[in-house]
Amino acid sequence: MDALRHACAGLPPADAAARQAIAARNAVLTKPPGSLGRLEELAAWLGAWQGRATPVLERVRVIVFAGNHGVVARGVSPWPADVTGQMVGNFAAGGAAINQLARVADAQLTVIPLAELAPTADFTEAPAMDEAQFLAAVAAGHASVPPQTDLLCLGEMGIGNTTAAAALAAALFSGDGTQWAGPGAGSDAAGIARKAAAIDAGLARHAAWRGDPLEMARRVGGYELAAILGAVLAARRNRVPVVLDGFVCTAAAAPLARLHPEGLAHAVLSHQSAETAHGVLARHLGLAPLLALEMRLGEASGAALAVPLLRAALACHAGMASFAEAGISARQ
Amino acid sequence: MDALRHACAGLPPADAAARQAIAARNAVLTKPPGSLGRLEELAAWLGAWQGRATPVLERVRVIVFAGNHGVVARGVSPWPADVTGQMVGNFAAGGAAINQLARVADAQLTVIPLAELAPTADFTEAPAMDEAQFLAAVAAGHASVPPQTDLLCLGEMGIGNTTAAAALAAALFSGDGTQWAGPGAGSDAAGIARKAAAIDAGLARHAAWRGDPLEMARRVGGYELAAILGAVLAARRNRVPVVLDGFVCTAAAAPLARLHPEGLAHAVLSHQSAETAHGVLARHLGLAPLLALEMRLGEASGAALAVPLLRAALACHAGMASFAEAGISARQ
Repeated sequence: MDALRHACAGLPPADAAARQAIAARNAVLTKPPGSLGRLEELAAWLGAWQGRATPVLERVRVIVFAGNHGVVARGVSPWPADVTGQMVGNFAAGGAAINQLARVADAQLTVIPLAELAPTADFTEAPAMDEAQFLAAVAAGHASVPPQTDLLCLGEMGIGNTTAAAALAAALFSGDGTQWAGPGAGSDAAGIARKAAAIDAGLARHAAWRGDPLEMARRVGGYELAAILGAVLAARRNRVPVVLDGFVCTAAAAPLARLHPEGLAHAVLSHQSAETAHGVLARHLGLAPLLALEMRLGEASGAALAVPLLRAALACHAGMASFAEAGISARQ
Repeated sequence: MDALRHACAGLPPADAAARQAIAARNAVLTKPPGSLGRLEELAAWLGAWQGRATPVLERVRVIVFAGNHGVVARGVSPWPADVTGQMVGNFAAGGAAINQLARVADAQLTVIPLAELAPTADFTEAPAMDEAQFLAAVAAGHASVPPQTDLLCLGEMGIGNTTAAAALAAALFSGDGTQWAGPGAGSDAAGIARKAAAIDAGLARHAAWRGDPLEMARRVGGYELAAILGAVLAARRNRVPVVLDGFVCTAAAAPLARLHPEGLAHAVLSHQSAETAHGVLARHLGLAPLLALEMRLGEASGAALAVPLLRAALACHAGMASFAEAGISARQ
């Protein structure tokens, strides 16, 4: 745990020279300055983390981590826990949304089941994971990121994991179960009340560690959340830009922002989920979503959907003529 | 003018059976029902207008109309009117943002300069176009849409055209120059005040026709706006789904919504521009933007950027497995 804590505290910054070169070129391209809005920002962000004045998106990866959750025993999901493994099968067969979305994004999809899909402990009764289990999941996520990646999209699958994500978000940013529990994959009002109760029970049981982001990630999180944390950390250490997905993915990455003021500077938020808590969490983290399409699926679906926007940003940056090249009159 | 008025009043509806078939399939795909949010809606919308239970995006077209505006004599733009023609040259040479964005969208780009880029009359002094000029521009837009188009993205280029769009929006939906004038392609406060004054002068001069959408499109609009109106109408008559771009494009299409309660049912709004009036106009029209990336360029840039979202929607709809096919457990 100490080695992980140390790694999270000492993170490399972006390449300021690349960012500046991109901003300088943006200013002379044939458009009113700033008129491509966030596309201009995205080109500069990609280049800053890739360390390239002309960023590229050749090796784009989507990694989906899957895990099971002991807290499903509390009736927090309308879906049986079996569905996690069945969806891993569906990913392998190419039948899930993320298979289609990764193809549209021209990205390579990898699915990594954690702990052979054994569930964590029920966090209302005990820490979800012991230290060895937690660190193994973080390490699996860390090892899953090839250093030569141009862009990393992260996502998850795990019945019950919006409950774990809500508990972790509450632990990191205050609030209780009622504030952070939502319908997730389709809970009704009674189901949401059971989620809120489970979150409150978990927060009460682990209250003594509430100031410690990594301890809380171990105690109320999950295997796939820990793996996402490891992957976001690995990406940062190799200056790989990251696209976060929805509520669970964002909550999983959030400890890094609590451990380092610029901990998620290498990440953009692809979308704002229909899960209300996601917007709240995004504001806590200062992350502005690129899309808001009322999606609430997970699987990195929002992250993959943002890839064409990044490709568009780079295409404009690399391909547009300057005012001088196009012989266009200056402003009066 | 009467033939145009008649055409706008009698518009064909979408294919309800195709829409229903798509909704039925959406409900059994391997995801919580509704969890792909607006992607599900978009697949159904595309199919309803294409009349296909499995919609396609093979023949995607981007058409950019260009025109000049007499009202630039009022100092409403920081850019000289020459830039309209220079940008048409830049489109032909492949150096503009839309060239790159159309390529990313895998769409065919056509640029159509209207009236050989001769300016309209200054609408503060006279109708921008006489009837023959207006109808010729509408007809040029109408003729530009091949009936066998799977998706039509529309946009414009014209120095001064946010002033024309603001005047038209005010005429159609109430309000004055101060409420509808914005920075456009980069006006400062004094420039925005000149725009507002020009809009108010135009509204005063043509006040007697304020209840007549087509008359106001002729009197305070512009050639490229009239062409967009013609293209949106042609698309509707051939049941081609349309993606609208920013403020000018949306204002240009708006008369159709004033002439028929479902006049823009075959159109989606690609993005919400940074131009504040665009959000106001979108709310008047009941259009919910797909993207909000603080763009304010025009050229169909936002419309082209939305195409990959539509491709993603169709890829999910066509490619995902059903629960039965994937052998996934039902909800409890």
